[in-house]
Amino acid sequence: MSDLKNDTFIRALLRQPTPYTPVWLMRQAGRYLPEYNQTRARAGNFLALCKNPNYATEVTLQPLARYALDAAIVFSDILTIPDAMGLGLYFAEGEGPRFERPLRDESEIRKLAPPDPTTHLRYVLDAVSQVRRALDGSVPLIGFSGSPFTLACYMIEGRGSSDFASVKKMLYQRPDLLHRILGVNAEAVTAYLNAQIEAGAQAVMIFDTWGGALTTSAYEEFSLEYMRRIISGIEREHAGLRVPNIVFTKGGGGWLERIAAIDCDAVGLDWTVDIASARARIGAQVALQGNLDPAILLSSPKAIEREATKILSGFGSGSGHVFNLGHGISQFTPPENVSALVEAVRRLSLAYHQEPRQ
Amino acid sequence: MSDLKNDTFIRALLRQPTPYTPVWLMRQAGRYLPEYNQTRARAGNFLALCKNPNYATEVTLQPLARYALDAAIVFSDILTIPDAMGLGLYFAEGEGPRFERPLRDESEIRKLAPPDPTTHLRYVLDAVSQVRRALDGSVPLIGFSGSPFTLACYMIEGRGSSDFASVKKMLYQRPDLLHRILGVNAEAVTAYLNAQIEAGAQAVMIFDTWGGALTTSAYEEFSLEYMRRIISGIEREHAGLRVPNIVFTKGGGGWLERIAAIDCDAVGLDWTVDIASARARIGAQVALQGNLDPAILLSSPKAIEREATKILSGFGSGSGHVFNLGHGISQFTPPENVSALVEAVRRLSLAYHQEPRQ
Repeated sequence: MSDLKNDTFIRALLRQPTPYTPVWLMRQAGRYLPEYNQTRARAGNFLALCKNPNYATEVTLQPLARYALDAAIVFSDILTIPDAMGLGLYFAEGEGPRFERPLRDESEIRKLAPPDPTTHLRYVLDAVSQVRRALDGSVPLIGFSGSPFTLACYMIEGRGSSDFASVKKMLYQRPDLLHRILGVNAEAVTAYLNAQIEAGAQAVMIFDTWGGALTTSAYEEFSLEYMRRIISGIEREHAGLRVPNIVFTKGGGGWLERIAAIDCDAVGLDWTVDIASARARIGAQVALQGNLDPAILLSSPKAIEREATKILSGFGSGSGHVFNLGHGISQFTPPENVSALVEAVRRLSLAYHQEPRQ
Repeated sequence: MSDLKNDTFIRALLRQPTPYTPVWLMRQAGRYLPEYNQTRARAGNFLALCKNPNYATEVTLQPLARYALDAAIVFSDILTIPDAMGLGLYFAEGEGPRFERPLRDESEIRKLAPPDPTTHLRYVLDAVSQVRRALDGSVPLIGFSGSPFTLACYMIEGRGSSDFASVKKMLYQRPDLLHRILGVNAEAVTAYLNAQIEAGAQAVMIFDTWGGALTTSAYEEFSLEYMRRIISGIEREHAGLRVPNIVFTKGGGGWLERIAAIDCDAVGLDWTVDIASARARIGAQVALQGNLDPAILLSSPKAIEREATKILSGFGSGSGHVFNLGHGISQFTPPENVSALVEAVRRLSLAYHQEPRQ
């Protein structure tokens, strides 16, 4: 189906048979790796690392050199889009992302426009092309974006938030303004993901990190609806090959049926969801990705193997599962525990992919 | 059934008919009220306020003077139990609760013992008695506790946490130690809630604020199991009257059937849960409490009325619903918006409690 030497990740997303369960880890290139911290120090800071395709390529490949992972994900940040819109992304040391010019008044919101990814986000596309060449078909490359709602949270709050007071105030008092932002974001994300596919991404993922902070009806109206638009607007095939997509709403375990119904190929699960019941609920329509609690990687190889087994046996036999964490890896993870996980998933998952006996 | 002038809250928890849907708000006595801030300033700080029954009584009654609420909840903190165990609770200004002596090594954990509520937590019981007398039967008084797991989170981390790295490390590497802490906590909470019932609490609630951070199987083993023990150990009747209980796991929307199965009277719902589907899932076994997003109170009376209507109509006709927020009220809530909510719930809920026409 492709010139990929290892296409288990793509096949699992399309619910086709694979010899074992493929595995990759959200934020697999990151601060838990000493070599990542060295590159970051050379780059100067996190944003300089993201914006330099050479450095971004270097750190994207680092976890693949250590572990037998079945996919690479281009190193970038979900906030590149609002930065390209002119909001002025910066990182306050130890305090996470901030915007110099958060969206505060109606006139700014009216002026908001989707950026042209081929100019303002060229550095991401260059990193995608460069990583794709460097991978040389060893494993597929994932492109990604934040969801329109998750981007809006940062754009309106101007930073991370625990209660999203400003976003929710707008949602309940001026839903028209929030819809305007979300419409622009959905258009921007669609163009951005398509540009990543053109540049070489072989699968794409939408991270809806904050959709789970909403009520069910607000989630449908302000997050899911805009992801639906993206899914219907992105390329499903490129150069004759399927480009599968994954939608992940953290805290969205109550809405799996609704997420599966937007016609995505796979649904990401956070660790609070029991994967056996998730498969029973939506496994006939979509592949599932997840869902080890990242905190388990702080424990021991023995505990990691036990908990990975629970997830593999929970999903059970057959295709349609991509093993992953239920959220990004912690910076305090001992790198050798990641080895233990990747090795355990490969070894233990074989039993769930045997050919049926005649 | 009692000498209560308004027993709608108790009746709704027991799924008996009421003329309207009773309402109270988690953290209804709090920083959004100017009179609370005045009392707190007089007391000196939050902990001094909790530990002085006169001040605690005063602030407990403040929201009832403003709003037609159907229940009072004794003003206290969930961390009184670990404080009584000798961990040294204090509040760092603007940074939330801390413990001077968090549980770090095995010998401290082995020494842990449930405190005698009638001595070490006397100040809470005195506040309960005093509030009960002051209420004079106007509305029922709720007693409460944190869940064993939620208390353990603070006891082990020594403070709030976003990832519960220390607790989870113990959970996966030394589950025996965590079970030891949880066993002591469950015994302590049972004795504490029974002492509050003896002192005058007419209903009790268990706040499982952090159970939602667990995987499904860890939730069952490390949080729900210990709440089950408490429910089976607390008094269900006092002085000939039923004392209903409420169990609330924030982020527990995926586990409602399991929660209802521990034989509690009512299940609290956070705002992410659709109350119509919650009723369909567990409404035949338990009453439901919730579940307005507290952020809605930051908007306008019109939006508040619209969202309250969604919840009332979502639950639908009949008994078994206590209106509440899905989490504690925000300190930035305009007090007049609470008036709008309480008034709207009373007025709009009448339609769902009419006698069926012959």
